[in-house]
Amino acid sequence: MITCRLYKEGVLKEEAFDPSRVSDLIEEPGARVWVDIADPSTDELAMIQEEFSLHPLAMEDTRNRNQRPKLEVFEGYFFLVLHALSLDEKDELRDGEVHAFAGHRFLITLRYPPVFDIGEVVKRCDRRTDLTQHGGGFLLYAVIDEVVDGYFAVIERFEDQGEEIEDRVFADQPDPDVQEDIFRLKRRVVTFRRLVIPLREVLDLVQEQPGFVTAELGPYYRDVADHVIRTLEFVDSIRDLLTSALEAQLSQVSNRLNVVMKQLTGWAAIILIPTLIAGIYGMNFKNMPELPWRYGYAYALGLMFVSMLLLYRAFKKRDWL
Amino acid sequence: MITCRLYKEGVLKEEAFDPSRVSDLIEEPGARVWVDIADPSTDELAMIQEEFSLHPLAMEDTRNRNQRPKLEVFEGYFFLVLHALSLDEKDELRDGEVHAFAGHRFLITLRYPPVFDIGEVVKRCDRRTDLTQHGGGFLLYAVIDEVVDGYFAVIERFEDQGEEIEDRVFADQPDPDVQEDIFRLKRRVVTFRRLVIPLREVLDLVQEQPGFVTAELGPYYRDVADHVIRTLEFVDSIRDLLTSALEAQLSQVSNRLNVVMKQLTGWAAIILIPTLIAGIYGMNFKNMPELPWRYGYAYALGLMFVSMLLLYRAFKKRDWL
Amino acid sequence: MITCRLYKEGVLKEEAFDPSRVSDLIEEPGARVWVDIADPSTDELAMIQEEFSLHPLAMEDTRNRNQRPKLEVFEGYFFLVLHALSLDEKDELRDGEVHAFAGHRFLITLRYPPVFDIGEVVKRCDRRTDLTQHGGGFLLYAVIDEVVDGYFAVIERFEDQGEEIEDRVFADQPDPDVQEDIFRLKRRVVTFRRLVIPLREVLDLVQEQPGFVTAELGPYYRDVADHVIRTLEFVDSIRDLLTSALEAQLSQVSNRLNVVMKQLTGWAAIILIPTLIAGIYGMNFKNMPELPWRYGYAYALGLMFVSMLLLYRAFKKRDWL
Amino acid sequence: MITCRLYKEGVLKEEAFDPSRVSDLIEEPGARVWVDIADPSTDELAMIQEEFSLHPLAMEDTRNRNQRPKLEVFEGYFFLVLHALSLDEKDELRDGEVHAFAGHRFLITLRYPPVFDIGEVVKRCDRRTDLTQHGGGFLLYAVIDEVVDGYFAVIERFEDQGEEIEDRVFADQPDPDVQEDIFRLKRRVVTFRRLVIPLREVLDLVQEQPGFVTAELGPYYRDVADHVIRTLEFVDSIRDLLTSALEAQLSQVSNRLNVVMKQLTGWAAIILIPTLIAGIYGMNFKNMPELPWRYGYAYALGLMFVSMLLLYRAFKKRDWL
Amino acid sequence: MITCRLYKEGVLKEEAFDPSRVSDLIEEPGARVWVDIADPSTDELAMIQEEFSLHPLAMEDTRNRNQRPKLEVFEGYFFLVLHALSLDEKDELRDGEVHAFAGHRFLITLRYPPVFDIGEVVKRCDRRTDLTQHGGGFLLYAVIDEVVDGYFAVIERFEDQGEEIEDRVFADQPDPDVQEDIFRLKRRVVTFRRLVIPLREVLDLVQEQPGFVTAELGPYYRDVADHVIRTLEFVDSIRDLLTSALEAQLSQVSNRLNVVMKQLTGWAAIILIPTLIAGIYGMNFKNMPELPWRYGYAYALGLMFVSMLLLYRAFKKRDWL
Repeated sequence: MITCRLYKEGVLKEEAFDPSRVSDLIEEPGARVWVDIADPSTDELAMIQEEFSLHPLAMEDTRNRNQRPKLEVFEGYFFLVLHALSLDEKDELRDGEVHAFAGHRFLITLRYPPVFDIGEVVKRCDRRTDLTQHGGGFLLYAVIDEVVDGYFAVIERFEDQGEEIEDRVFADQPDPDVQEDIFRLKRRVVTFRRLVIPLREVLDLVQEQPGFVTAELGPYYRDVADHVIRTLEFVDSIRDLLTSALEAQLSQVSNRLNVVMKQLTGWAAIILIPTLIAGIYGMNFKNMPELPWRYGYAYALGLMFVSMLLLYRAFKKRDWL
Repeated sequence: MITCRLYKEGVLKEEAFDPSRVSDLIEEPGARVWVDIADPSTDELAMIQEEFSLHPLAMEDTRNRNQRPKLEVFEGYFFLVLHALSLDEKDELRDGEVHAFAGHRFLITLRYPPVFDIGEVVKRCDRRTDLTQHGGGFLLYAVIDEVVDGYFAVIERFEDQGEEIEDRVFADQPDPDVQEDIFRLKRRVVTFRRLVIPLREVLDLVQEQPGFVTAELGPYYRDVADHVIRTLEFVDSIRDLLTSALEAQLSQVSNRLNVVMKQLTGWAAIILIPTLIAGIYGMNFKNMPELPWRYGYAYALGLMFVSMLLLYRAFKKRDWL
Repeated sequence: MITCRLYKEGVLKEEAFDPSRVSDLIEEPGARVWVDIADPSTDELAMIQEEFSLHPLAMEDTRNRNQRPKLEVFEGYFFLVLHALSLDEKDELRDGEVHAFAGHRFLITLRYPPVFDIGEVVKRCDRRTDLTQHGGGFLLYAVIDEVVDGYFAVIERFEDQGEEIEDRVFADQPDPDVQEDIFRLKRRVVTFRRLVIPLREVLDLVQEQPGFVTAELGPYYRDVADHVIRTLEFVDSIRDLLTSALEAQLSQVSNRLNVVMKQLTGWAAIILIPTLIAGIYGMNFKNMPELPWRYGYAYALGLMFVSMLLLYRAFKKRDWL
Repeated sequence: MITCRLYKEGVLKEEAFDPSRVSDLIEEPGARVWVDIADPSTDELAMIQEEFSLHPLAMEDTRNRNQRPKLEVFEGYFFLVLHALSLDEKDELRDGEVHAFAGHRFLITLRYPPVFDIGEVVKRCDRRTDLTQHGGGFLLYAVIDEVVDGYFAVIERFEDQGEEIEDRVFADQPDPDVQEDIFRLKRRVVTFRRLVIPLREVLDLVQEQPGFVTAELGPYYRDVADHVIRTLEFVDSIRDLLTSALEAQLSQVSNRLNVVMKQLTGWAAIILIPTLIAGIYGMNFKNMPELPWRYGYAYALGLMFVSMLLLYRAFKKRDWL
Repeated sequence: MITCRLYKEGVLKEEAFDPSRVSDLIEEPGARVWVDIADPSTDELAMIQEEFSLHPLAMEDTRNRNQRPKLEVFEGYFFLVLHALSLDEKDELRDGEVHAFAGHRFLITLRYPPVFDIGEVVKRCDRRTDLTQHGGGFLLYAVIDEVVDGYFAVIERFEDQGEEIEDRVFADQPDPDVQEDIFRLKRRVVTFRRLVIPLREVLDLVQEQPGFVTAELGPYYRDVADHVIRTLEFVDSIRDLLTSALEAQLSQVSNRLNVVMKQLTGWAAIILIPTLIAGIYGMNFKNMPELPWRYGYAYALGLMFVSMLLLYRAFKKRDWL
C-alpha cells in the first residue's frame, strides 16, 4: 500500500495522489513530499527509484533485509535503517524493519513488514503542518519518534514480565518453569538491545547532516535521542536484574532442597523409631517381661505413638517439618 | 503551593508576592527571582509561561514525567530535570522529579511530587544572601545540593541494609527470605543508579553554560559534582557486594544442605543399627543360644543402646551431628 | 594453484596467464592484476616477490601463520591478514588464513589452507568488471566481502546450535551432555570472536590508505564494515545467552534434584509405613486382640494397602510423585 | 599535636616553632614551611586560616570528613584529600583521612585520625633537605609517597589472606566459615579500591598545577603515580580471584555433598541388606528348612556378615566410602 | 655475568671486552654498545653508572624489584622495565624482571633473575648485524622480541592445560581436584595478564621517543606490539573459558549428585520392598493361609526376588541405576 502526501508552505496540499507524479510535484517551490510504502514490490521500488532519481547503490541497500540500524550518505539524501519493535500476543518480539530515504525535500519510508502504525505518524504531521516546512527533517523525526515511542511499550511489557517473574521466583510454591521464562525474557531483551543500540549513533549522524536538522528541529531530535538513551538504560537495568533473578532462583531452588531434605529426615525418624520399637517387641527372647502384660500391646502402641509425637514436636519446633 | 522570592543586591527584598508581578519585578536592575511550585496545575504552568515568556517547546518538556536527568538549552535559559530520591518507611524508593528553568536572573522549580524539603533550600539561601547576586547559578546550586544531600541519606540506608543482609547471610540460623531481600535491595540500587548516573553529565553541562556558573560559584558546583561521583562510587560498591552476597548465600545454603545430609546419615545409622539387632533376635531359628538366657532381653537392649551410643559418639566426633 | 587475472579499463583482458609475465603486464597503462595462490610454495612466493618487487620484510610477514587480522603499510602497497572461517561437518571451526598484498594496481591473495571459494570472488568481479578500474581497492573488497559473507553462515549455525541447546536445557528429559555442548559452543564462539574482532579496525585502516578506497568504493567498504560490526554484535548476544544458558542449566539440574528427592521421600514413606504395620503385628505380645481374628491377616494387609494409597494420593496431590 | 618545620635554601632552619609565627617566617626569601596537625581543633584550624590567609571556602572543605580523594584549586594553593589506609589487628581497614593545603612555599597537612606515621615523612625530608627548595611540591610528594607505601603493606596483607583462604577452600576438611571470610575480604578490597582509585586522577591534576611539580620532581611524582596504578592492578587481580574463589568454594561444597550422599547410600545398603536377611528368617512359615538347622543361627549371622563385607568392599572399590 | 658487545657500522667489532672501557669506546663514531648483566651486584651497578654517566634517579629505579612494565624518560636515554615470563617444571609462573637503559648509542640490560636466554638475542643480533647501525633501537627490539616470544610458549602451555582441564571436567569419572586446578590456572593467567598488559602502552611510548625507533625499525616494533596484543587476546579468551569451565564443573557436580540420588532411591526401593514382604510374613496372625503351605517359604523368597527384579528393571529403564 502506498501513502503519498504533498505539503507546501506548511499546508497539506494533496494526498493519495499517484506516485508517478512525484518527479513533477517535487520541483514546485516549497514542495515537501512524503511517500510511504508497506511491503514494497519490485515494481514499486523501480518506480520510486525513477521518480526520485535514486542511486543504484542506494536501491541495492534497500533490497537487503536484516540490517542493523545505520545511516548511509548519498548525494543530496541519505539512507537510514531502523527497527520498529513490538511484542505479539505470545510476547515474542516482532521486528518491523523500516528503510528510509531522507532528503531536504522528501522522505520515502519502506516498511517490511509494516509493524508500526503509519496512521499515527500522519496524524502527528497533520497536527503540526507548519513544521513540514522543515521538510524531510521533520517528517523523518515524526517517523522515528513514533518508532521510539513503540520501544517504551515494549520496555514496559518487559518490566511487567520481569516483576511477574520475580514474584514467581520468590513465591512459596516452587515454579519449575520460571528459569525457562527468565531465560526466554533475557533473550528477547538481548535481541531488543542489539536492534536498538546502534540507533543512538545513527541519530547523532542524522543531526550532523548539513542543513537537514534545522535549529528549530534540534530540540525534537535531541528529545528522541534522549528517549533512545533512556530506553537503553532501562534495558540494561532489566538485563542486570534478570541475571540476578537467575541466581536468586538457583539459591531459591537450593533452599527448597534443604526444606525437602529436612522433611525427609524428619519423617524418616518419625517412622523408623516405632519400627524399631515394633522390632524390639518382635524379638523371640524367652524372658521378656512386657510380653505377658495384659495391656502390653496397648503399652507398645502407646510408646510408639508418644515417640512419634515427641519427634514430630521436636522437628516442628526446629522448623524441619 | 507557590513560593516566590525576590533578591536584590544580595538582600531578600520580597517574599510570598503574587507570581503575576514577576514580569515587572524581574526587569528591575539587580533583581533575582526564584519561583517554586509544588505539583503545578495547568493554570499555574500557563501563568509561569507568560510571566517568563518561556518557549512553547520548553513548556511541553515540563509536561512529561519520568524523564531522565537532562539539560535542554533554550535562548537565555535552560531546562533541567533531576530526581530527588528518598526511601519511604517501607524502604521503597520515592522519586520526586524536579524540573527547573534556570536563567541568569531567575530560577523556576517545579516539583512532582514534592518529595524534598524546599524549606531547607530557602534557609540555605537566606544564610548566604550575598551569593544570590550570582542569580540563577546560585539558586540552582542550592536546589541541586539539597537534592544530592538527600542521596547520601539513601546511600547510608542502602549500606545499613547491606550490612544487615550480610549478617543474615552468615547467621547460624538460615533465613530463607534473605535472597529475596538481597534481590529487592539490588533492584532499588539499580533504579537509584539509573536515576542518578546522568546527573554527572548534566552538572558538566550546567558549568559549560556561558556566564551562568560564575568563577565564585565554581567550587560550589565542583563540590556537588564530586558528591554525585562519590554517590555513584558507593552505589557501585554496594551493587558489587550484593552480587557477591547472593553467591555467598548460595554457597551458605549448600553448606547447610551438607549439614542436613550428614545429620540424616548419622541419625539413620543410629536408628537402623538397633533395628537390625532387633531383627536378628526376631529370627525364628530353633537354636539361638541368646534367646533362653535369663537376661537375654536386657542384653539385647543393652547391645542396642551401646551401639547407638558408639555411633552417636563417632558421628559427633566427625562433627556430623 | 595459481589464479591470474588481468583487467584493463574495466574489461577482463587475460586470465590464467603465466605469473612470470606480471612485471611486464602491470606496466601497461590501466592494467589491474590479481594473483591468487592457494597454499603457496616457497618457489611461488619467491617468484611473486620478484615480479611485484615486494620488500623482504613484507615477505617475512607472509611466512608466519596464526597472525591476528592486521594491516602493515609498505611503500606503495600494504600487507593485510584476515581469517576466512567456516564450520566443518563436526561443527569445528575451520580457519583459512588469508594474506593479501594490495596496491593500487594489483592484489595478491595467499590462502593457507584455501578454505573459502575463490570462484565466488571471481564471479563477483566478472559481474562488475567496470569497478575493476578502481584496481586493488575493488578486488580487495570482493575478497573481504566473500570472507565476511562466510561469517554469517557461521553465525547462523551458532544461532541454530544455541537454540537447539536451549531446547535441550529446558526439555523434560534431563540431558547430561548439554553443559559440555554449551561449553564447546562457547569456546568456538570465543575463538571466532578473537579472530574477527580486529578486522573492524583493519577495515578502518584500509579506508584511510590514501587513494586506495575511491569515493565510489566508499559505500562498499562501509557496507562490509557494517557487516563485521553486525557479526560481532551477534556473537556478543550469543556469548551472553550461552552464559545464561549455563546458569539456567545449573538451576535446572538443581530443580531435577528437588524432584528426585521428593520422589525418594514419597516412596520411602509409602514403603516404610506398611513395614511399620507389619512390624507391629509381628510383635510377640501375649494379648494382641487382632491376632486371633479370622480376617486379621486380611485386615492387616488392607490396613497396609489403605495407608499406601492415602500416602500416594497425598504426595501426588502435593506433586511430589 | 602540631609539627612545624622551616626549611631555607635546602637546610632545616627551625623546627617546633610556634605556628603563630608562620605569617612572618613565610615572608623571608627562600622560606619553605610545613605545618602538620593531628586531629586539629577548631582553634587550630582558625589559627591556620589566619596565618596562611586561607579562603573561607577552603576551610569549609576541610571541616567535612569522608571525602573522596580530590583536588580543589584555590588562588596560589590547592586543597587535596587522600586516605592513608592500614589494617588493624583484626584486619579491619583503618582509614586515616589526610587533608592538605599545598602552595609553592608551604604545605599544611591535617590528619583525621592520625593513622600514618608522620615521623617517617620527617625523616625522609631530613635525608633530602636539598629537595626542600622545591617547596610544597617536594613536601607533598614525601607525604603522598609515605601514604602510598602504606598501601603496599595493605595489599600484601590482602594477598596473604587471599592465599590463606585458597588453602582453606581446597583443604580436605571443609571449613564452613570460609565463604564468610571470602566475602569480608572482598568487602575490604572493594572499600580499599573505592578510596584509592580517584587518587590516580588527583596525581595527574597535581602535576598539572603550573610551577608546582618542578622538572626535577617530575620523576618522583611519576614514580608514586606508577605505584598507585600498580596497587590498583593488584587490587583488581585479588578481586577477580576472590570471585573465582567464591565459585570454587561453591563447587567444593557440592563436591562434598556428593561424597556425603555416596556414604549415605553405601552405609544404608550395608545396614539394610542384613536387616532384610533377618526379616526373612523372622518369617513364620511352617516349612523353612534353615530354621531347625543346628548352626542355622550362625549361618544367618555369617550370611549377614558376608553380605556386609561384600557390600563394603564394593563401595570402597568405587570410592563411595 | 657480564656480556659486552661493540658494533660499528653494522659489524661486530669487539665482544667480551672489559666494561670499564665503555666510556672510551662509546665516543668512537658509529659505535653501538650493548652491555648485559645477569643479577648485577652493587659494584657492577656503580661501574655502569659511571661508564654511562647515568642519573642517580635512574639508578635508584633499577634498585627496586617488582616494578610493573613502564618507561621512564631521562635526558638522552630512557629506563624500561619488562617481565620475561616462563613456566617452571611445576607450571608455576617464573618471573624474570628485565631492566633496560636504552639510548641511541647503547643498550644496558639487567636481568633479575636471568630467566630468559640472552644467547638467543645475541644470535639474532649477529644474524642481522646491519641493523645494529640503528643502535639501541634495534638492540632493544631484539631483547623485547625474545621476551615476547617467550610469552607464546607460556600461552600455549596455558591452552594445553585449559584443554586438559576441560577433558577432566567432562570426563565420566568425577575428578574432585579439577576445580582447584582451574582456580590455580586462573591465578597464573591473571598474574600473567597483570605483568603483560602495561607492556602494550610501554611499546607505544618507545615508538614515540624521538629518533629512537627509525623508519626502518618501525615494522619490527609494530610486529612485536602486535604479538603483545595477540598474547593478551589469547589470555582473555582463556580467562573467559576458565570462568565458564568453573561453572560447567559446578553443573557437572550437581549432575552427578542427581545420579547418586537416583541410585540411592533405586537401591533403597529394591531393598525395602522385600523387607516389607518379609515383615508381612513375620506377622503373628493366627490365620495366615500362606504360612502352612509346603512351599510357602520358597514362594515368599520368589515374591521378593520377583519384586526386586521388576524394580531393578523399572529403574534401569528410567536410567536411574
